[in-house]
Amino acid sequence: MAKVLCVLYDDPVGGYPNSYARDGIPNIDRYPGGQTAPTPKRIDFKPGELLGSVSGGLGLRKFLEGLGHTFVVTSDKEGENSVFERELLDAEIVISQPFWPAYLTAERIAKAKKLKLAITAGIGSDHVDLEAAIKHGVTVSEVTYSNSISVSEHVVMMILSLVRNYIPSYKLVIDGGWNIADCISRSYDLEAMEVGTVAAGRIGLAVLKRLKPFDVKLHYTDRHRLPEHVEEELNLTFHSNVESMVPVEGLGGSVHWPDAASDDKTDKQSAIFSTAINFILGLRWGNQELGYSIPGGPTSIETNYSELER
Amino acid sequence: MAKVLCVLYDDPVGGYPNSYARDGIPNIDRYPGGQTAPTPKRIDFKPGELLGSVSGGLGLRKFLEGLGHTFVVTSDKEGENSVFERELLDAEIVISQPFWPAYLTAERIAKAKKLKLAITAGIGSDHVDLEAAIKHGVTVSEVTYSNSISVSEHVVMMILSLVRNYIPSYKLVIDGGWNIADCISRSYDLEAMEVGTVAAGRIGLAVLKRLKPFDVKLHYTDRHRLPEHVEEELNLTFHSNVESMVPVEGLGGSVHWPDAASDDKTDKQSAIFSTAINFILGLRWGNQELGYSIPGGPTSIETNYSELER
Repeated sequence: MAKVLCVLYDDPVGGYPNSYARDGIPNIDRYPGGQTAPTPKRIDFKPGELLGSVSGGLGLRKFLEGLGHTFVVTSDKEGENSVFERELLDAEIVISQPFWPAYLTAERIAKAKKLKLAITAGIGSDHVDLEAAIKHGVTVSEVTYSNSISVSEHVVMMILSLVRNYIPSYKLVIDGGWNIADCISRSYDLEAMEVGTVAAGRIGLAVLKRLKPFDVKLHYTDRHRLPEHVEEELNLTFHSNVESMVPVEGLGGSVHWPDAASDDKTDKQSAIFSTAINFILGLRWGNQELGYSIPGGPTSIETNYSELER
Repeated sequence: MAKVLCVLYDDPVGGYPNSYARDGIPNIDRYPGGQTAPTPKRIDFKPGELLGSVSGGLGLRKFLEGLGHTFVVTSDKEGENSVFERELLDAEIVISQPFWPAYLTAERIAKAKKLKLAITAGIGSDHVDLEAAIKHGVTVSEVTYSNSISVSEHVVMMILSLVRNYIPSYKLVIDGGWNIADCISRSYDLEAMEVGTVAAGRIGLAVLKRLKPFDVKLHYTDRHRLPEHVEEELNLTFHSNVESMVPVEGLGGSVHWPDAASDDKTDKQSAIFSTAINFILGLRWGNQELGYSIPGGPTSIETNYSELER
């Protein structure tokens, strides 16, 4: 019997929900491209219920404990005295989330003598030291495609919101104002703008597809070029590197977006975003940082608008 | 020489902008469908500048005064003692906006002895008593298509934001929180949901086109059915009336959305919205009012979320 250690974010401040805005969620059989969605024999929860926080336990408690396994769930994941680090010592399986990651550093992996499997409940393995995992024979796995479409929707939502000045307009309203001109003065239409994605994998391509009918001019850069028929269908302009797509230095690879902002060469004519930089999505406009968002998580827009007007 | 009376919203609280987030806006030659955009011989402003507020004067002041006309611009439009009502007495042309309308009631039209033309700087004539206008020989005109795409973008943005719980998540953040579970518990993906539009004219059709790649099931109702090839291309389900599309009473025609909320029969499985109800866009989710928005204007989301959880 195994010990499964699961790191999840805290329950809602007001307690675990008793009911939901919707009675359920639509059923998805396949991901785009034809890959089948997971087909569990049975589930112990109602689709649409909150499972990602501690009390939800990803809907795994009954299943795992019914098979005699030990299932430990915690949100306490930082530092040597955290529940995660203590429970890790004899855990065989660790489950963590890309947007609330329990970092499996080389030091932690060295301490986790029984660890065999590190699962990302989502996509990505940035929070695992892959070299150390290989060295210790730890398998690292993810649920490929599970939230790619969700992130792509989030990206389109953010692009529209940033271009159209949605969040700052809402802020004006909750601050007691209703001054149309303040909202309008930096609100634009997305139509006919140039939009590029850094990487066009599952998420990036889904974003490009969704943006097509907005009549924008689409660009992308990726190590792997998309098939010609996809480029034609979406009228994509391919760039062999990010610098040729948009003049921002240090934007490619795993560079953290805010770092790129410091040395900026963008003009004020492009809306650019990335789907592949660490776990923070950053959006910028011209020479200003415009916002960050954890897809599927809380959303923050931090902008110095006074600087926009200089 | 004519007197032109123009009603615009107030300038920004901090004064008229000196600079903008962008250096300009993309050029649009044609609207979707091929209709040409306006082709003025020359313009006295830089595209992208704020023109809709009082000091902007829609970019018309130099043009009109250069031709010897009188150009009066005001934001004071309500009541008998308003600047609008006083200036209206000898005005020949009135220019107003759909989202900051100067109502031309029968009483006001009767007082405006010289009035020949009422122009909407945008789309719509809900703010003009058309019967009175006809009776007094006043021509009522609009700039067809001028903001249809803008509204359609706004609608898609709002649908994504409401489904994904964007605005309330932002509210949590500015209130000092960063509790993922509170955001997640009513955040969903749009994918595979049923989405319907009440009316599928320029705006509604543009919304449907933009939603197609989100892999939703699209519905619409309209007095005029769309061509078969459009229905096929977008995989639309046509409903001969709004009640057959979504079980909400009193939703069709010119009924104001909030009125429809009081007698509610919707289940919690549909996201519905309207592009044609007065000048307020309303969005609802299940049995709750979720938000309003003036397209192109300030955006307000007023929701009683506690009621969502009952």
